[in-house]
Amino acid sequence: MKETDFVNGFAKGLRVIEAFEDGDRRLSIAEVAKKTGLDRATVRRSLLTLVELQYADYDGKFFSLTPRILRLGHAYLSATPLPALLQPHLDHLAEKTGQSSSASVLDDIQVVYIARASQRRVMSINLTPGSRLPAYCSSMGRVLLAAMADEPVRQLLARTALRANTDRTLTDIDEIIVELGRVRQQGYAVIDQELELGLRSIAVPLKNRRGETIAALNVGAPAAHMSLTQMIEEVLPLLTDAAERLRISLM
Amino acid sequence: MKETDFVNGFAKGLRVIEAFEDGDRRLSIAEVAKKTGLDRATVRRSLLTLVELQYADYDGKFFSLTPRILRLGHAYLSATPLPALLQPHLDHLAEKTGQSSSASVLDDIQVVYIARASQRRVMSINLTPGSRLPAYCSSMGRVLLAAMADEPVRQLLARTALRANTDRTLTDIDEIIVELGRVRQQGYAVIDQELELGLRSIAVPLKNRRGETIAALNVGAPAAHMSLTQMIEEVLPLLTDAAERLRISLM
Repeated sequence: MKETDFVNGFAKGLRVIEAFEDGDRRLSIAEVAKKTGLDRATVRRSLLTLVELQYADYDGKFFSLTPRILRLGHAYLSATPLPALLQPHLDHLAEKTGQSSSASVLDDIQVVYIARASQRRVMSINLTPGSRLPAYCSSMGRVLLAAMADEPVRQLLARTALRANTDRTLTDIDEIIVELGRVRQQGYAVIDQELELGLRSIAVPLKNRRGETIAALNVGAPAAHMSLTQMIEEVLPLLTDAAERLRISLM
Repeated sequence: MKETDFVNGFAKGLRVIEAFEDGDRRLSIAEVAKKTGLDRATVRRSLLTLVELQYADYDGKFFSLTPRILRLGHAYLSATPLPALLQPHLDHLAEKTGQSSSASVLDDIQVVYIARASQRRVMSINLTPGSRLPAYCSSMGRVLLAAMADEPVRQLLARTALRANTDRTLTDIDEIIVELGRVRQQGYAVIDQELELGLRSIAVPLKNRRGETIAALNVGAPAAHMSLTQMIEEVLPLLTDAAERLRISLM
């Protein structure tokens, strides 16, 4: 790629959109400049362009995104057959287990939810397609990392802030690598309150016909609702069954 | 807004992203140029910029979006308190009715789903946050249009392709305006197989404390599962109750 092939104004504009994450609904030019590290003039032009295209509103002081911005994320969801293929299987898993079931893919050091079915919203975590969680301490993240070789995983983890969300969270790279070896061997990952106290989840890889892991499926439940044994004895067979059916339907 | 305040490269890049809607997962430079009306050199630079930023993949011939693009739509969803506020109410509605319940806002001539809960996926329509439907023939669209004055609605409808999806679909602007008057008066809209044969839905406005309609809530069901009378006698009270509780919790 030549330098002249890079559209700076486009790249900076996308950074401006991302500045609205993390619950910051209304932002001033100064705030977006601070969050993105871009200069105010650039931020101002990007925001005014978004307003002109009706992707954002401006009340004279603050800018906020409009629902039109959903078209961008939706371009991926509607263009990718995977979420639509997954949804009935996740609905079935959620119904059978009475819990929530999700699918995600790896995006750098995080997992991104691409589909989800939930029977009841019991967790403090509010997840929708596009939501992200750290890969190192989530069940789907462990499954997706286990599909990679150890060395690139070490590099990813070295760039990750390995925070102890609870006193059970693995934060040592060597320990995580050992755990990923176990996940690779047994074909599933269990997270027992490493992401959040009171939350357990179990995940399996979704493989295509060539045996490549293309996503992860999981079921998450409040620890009070489901023991580790139940997760492995009751939920795991449903998950592997769903992954097997999906493998057959995938190219 | 001065002309120099508009970042052309950003605006064109956003059009390139939107070209991937409608199930077109893999697109060549020529295809994106055709869909967007932009010249190939511009499309090429925009696509290569997306690849450089890992928003897109390139296999040497075709470009496809990566899940990272979900960050953009998610910036809206996470920054807006409304979807998170709505979700427990939609979950409750879906559970009580055994059907699906959604919330949406108006984006030009379409409704955009901002939250959804479904008990079972029985429709041929696969809806997720960011999905869009035509406003003129959907229950939430009717509620949102009814909140506007007749003249701007006429202008919107004049720009809409008023397609008869079924032989029940209202496609005459005057008839739609009369129906919107009825919706305004009765406080809800019912769609009986105007969008799709076999599909009924009922919607109410979600108003803030100032009485402004800020979104619509609905319940949709297969016609075989629920009569019009059931929708009005059983579902409508649940919807108005949810809207009233939400109104109190909104600023």
